[in-house]
Amino acid sequence: MKTFSIPLPPSTKIAVVGLGYVGLPLAFALSKKFDVLGFDISLKRISELNAGVDATKEFSKKEVADTKIHFTSSDHDLKTADIYIIAVPTPVNQELIPDLGMLISASKTVGKCLAKGDIVIYESTVYPGATEEECLPVLEKTSGFKMNKDFFLGYSPERINPSDKIHKIDNITKVVSGSDEYSLEIIDELYSSIINAGTYKVNSIKVAEAAKVIENTQRDLNIALINEFSKIFALLDLDTEEVLKAAETKWNFIPFRPGLVGGHCIGVDPYYLTYKAQQVGYDPQVILSGRVVNDHMPNFIADRLLNTLNHLMFDVPNSLILILGYTFKENCNDVRNTKVHDLAVTLSNSVNIVNIFDPLMNNEQVNSLSDINFIDYPEINKYDAIIIAVGHQAFLELGINKIREFCKPNGLIYDLKYLFPPESVDLRL
Amino acid sequence: MKTFSIPLPPSTKIAVVGLGYVGLPLAFALSKKFDVLGFDISLKRISELNAGVDATKEFSKKEVADTKIHFTSSDHDLKTADIYIIAVPTPVNQELIPDLGMLISASKTVGKCLAKGDIVIYESTVYPGATEEECLPVLEKTSGFKMNKDFFLGYSPERINPSDKIHKIDNITKVVSGSDEYSLEIIDELYSSIINAGTYKVNSIKVAEAAKVIENTQRDLNIALINEFSKIFALLDLDTEEVLKAAETKWNFIPFRPGLVGGHCIGVDPYYLTYKAQQVGYDPQVILSGRVVNDHMPNFIADRLLNTLNHLMFDVPNSLILILGYTFKENCNDVRNTKVHDLAVTLSNSVNIVNIFDPLMNNEQVNSLSDINFIDYPEINKYDAIIIAVGHQAFLELGINKIREFCKPNGLIYDLKYLFPPESVDLRL
Repeated sequence: MKTFSIPLPPSTKIAVVGLGYVGLPLAFALSKKFDVLGFDISLKRISELNAGVDATKEFSKKEVADTKIHFTSSDHDLKTADIYIIAVPTPVNQELIPDLGMLISASKTVGKCLAKGDIVIYESTVYPGATEEECLPVLEKTSGFKMNKDFFLGYSPERINPSDKIHKIDNITKVVSGSDEYSLEIIDELYSSIINAGTYKVNSIKVAEAAKVIENTQRDLNIALINEFSKIFALLDLDTEEVLKAAETKWNFIPFRPGLVGGHCIGVDPYYLTYKAQQVGYDPQVILSGRVVNDHMPNFIADRLLNTLNHLMFDVPNSLILILGYTFKENCNDVRNTKVHDLAVTLSNSVNIVNIFDPLMNNEQVNSLSDINFIDYPEINKYDAIIIAVGHQAFLELGINKIREFCKPNGLIYDLKYLFPPESVDLRL
Repeated sequence: MKTFSIPLPPSTKIAVVGLGYVGLPLAFALSKKFDVLGFDISLKRISELNAGVDATKEFSKKEVADTKIHFTSSDHDLKTADIYIIAVPTPVNQELIPDLGMLISASKTVGKCLAKGDIVIYESTVYPGATEEECLPVLEKTSGFKMNKDFFLGYSPERINPSDKIHKIDNITKVVSGSDEYSLEIIDELYSSIINAGTYKVNSIKVAEAAKVIENTQRDLNIALINEFSKIFALLDLDTEEVLKAAETKWNFIPFRPGLVGGHCIGVDPYYLTYKAQQVGYDPQVILSGRVVNDHMPNFIADRLLNTLNHLMFDVPNSLILILGYTFKENCNDVRNTKVHDLAVTLSNSVNIVNIFDPLMNNEQVNSLSDINFIDYPEINKYDAIIIAVGHQAFLELGINKIREFCKPNGLIYDLKYLFPPESVDLRL
């Protein structure tokens, strides 16, 4: 049986399973110290990476071309690894219930490849208990091995912040856990060797899972509170940012901004925790109230714009609306679970045309979303209203004067992101 | 008509109306630069202060004896002031509706004293709009004056943090607002001259009111979220502090702790905002869900202790419980709206005796609360369970070994405040 010793030799073979926003940066970081196998079931993703292309745009063509990572979709290759790190998406389904499908599937794949002494580490966000209750049985069944006898288990939550140029994988402290003291030491050594910020050891896999899921839940709820403030302040004719800036002059006020909460993390992770809470008999009213408010923001924004247009005697059913930005986050081309979609759909029920301009999306992405009217560049003097929905640097560089040119002379600009001075726009969140 | 010029001369006479946790420190700070009248309707408070005694314990006997503030309950004295600052409590009633009684009453008193050119500034926490909608009409009616013609209005929210030795009145930025440009300049000058941290001018009284009320609302909700985590983690057999410490290794996790939310601010201010929100037709579900969870914590704590005692075969109906700490906050003798009261009452319905030991409370306070069993000092070897409810420094100094001596040999210690190491106690929040 294979045993690891500290320090881990550079020949240690590590497989990263799932090469998305989480797995790819991790594989790159690990490849500086170890022999890394980058595994993904997407043949397209693997062939792109082998051609030097990272569709998530986290790495340049040169970086991808120069890497020593062996990108593969082959189970046969996967078998050669000593340590497996699973970093696959953990979304929710239409009913907002955790969808562990990809996690279970990856566990089956890895289980079939296990050799005695191997270590399997999960990085995917789950509810507390999921790794041991849902993934471990799959690993044991498909491998025929027993945990802590034939192989070892670990959990180290990913804290990747896509498009963040300051907080990168090597300067974010990494929480690590293992199924026993031995595996905890090896897992800790593994991550310590690539993360300058260091690791934080916890005593159980469940604690590590819980620590991760509450991070995004806290963020989601704090944005929901600010969204609730924004809804109240709209009725009281108060400018939200003006109030927030004043409140932030207190030493312990926490600076959040209102907005659409989309993406694959902040709007999703809370449902993992609430699912488990409900399973054990607790009704998580605070967390769920925040989810309701955040999920309702596209409607609130659409209603406010339409009411304002009506109030100003615009011919709403014949009006043309432009939305600037479609991705779920600024300066990032990720469109998963973007709430701009909901906003566009809601508006399109009431107006004539909704166009979307997002210079960060490529044609392929745009073409795959056939129910949305993407445009290459807005026409001058065309729109009754423009919603600045995503705070792309590109829009800031375009400037408010240029953006106003896309409006008809009396058109409105609704700045959801406080991208421009209050006096230069007509509505703000 | 009186006019103020900048800089304000030391002869400027300022009346602080309401000498509680907010008014007294403010009066002290102002008295270093101006001629200050300290007004309170409580004859007891005034006679104590005149005798050098501050019952809120923010100032020493020497400080009170040495001050130049003229403490008074006389309306006649009040008439001599040029600037009035109203800092009276704004609680909620039994139905959790804002009780503006003291604010209106103080407004009447001040209104009767106004001379032309005077400025009236409110510091009490209210909902956005209250100063202009509720207080201003009272001032105008009782004085017969018109705002911005005969007198001026301002609002500058108090940010006093009682018992906090770091954040004091002179190093906390002060938000200021006024009814017109002139009054804003004078009010800004007034506070700038006593606050080293400086002021922050906002464009309307309503913005200043809103900024204040959201500060404590945000704090309340964040504690509620952690309380919700704590309730979920109790069911999942996870130690909350262990999870929080791991989560806090992420750069943007916000460090809050679970606990009882009492006092006159954090548990009260949110109801001011929700009252106004409901008045204008918005149902503030996020804020209210937090209030429900926080108000339910005494029940949750009592249930958890009783269930544990039952589970361990204690004779619960005959058991003796000791609660350490009664005030709403550590190292402070303020008992207003303390949730330890609710905890004691709830427990007393199920057990034989609930004793409370709080070394920070004096006999007078204790005697006024006749339905609670206060003790001077706990007996050795007496209690089936001890709840550490308030994190007084005095308990830390007492030490866990001494505290355990108050327990019967198999007794439990429930540490709500993480005052002692996890392994030294039996239950934690």
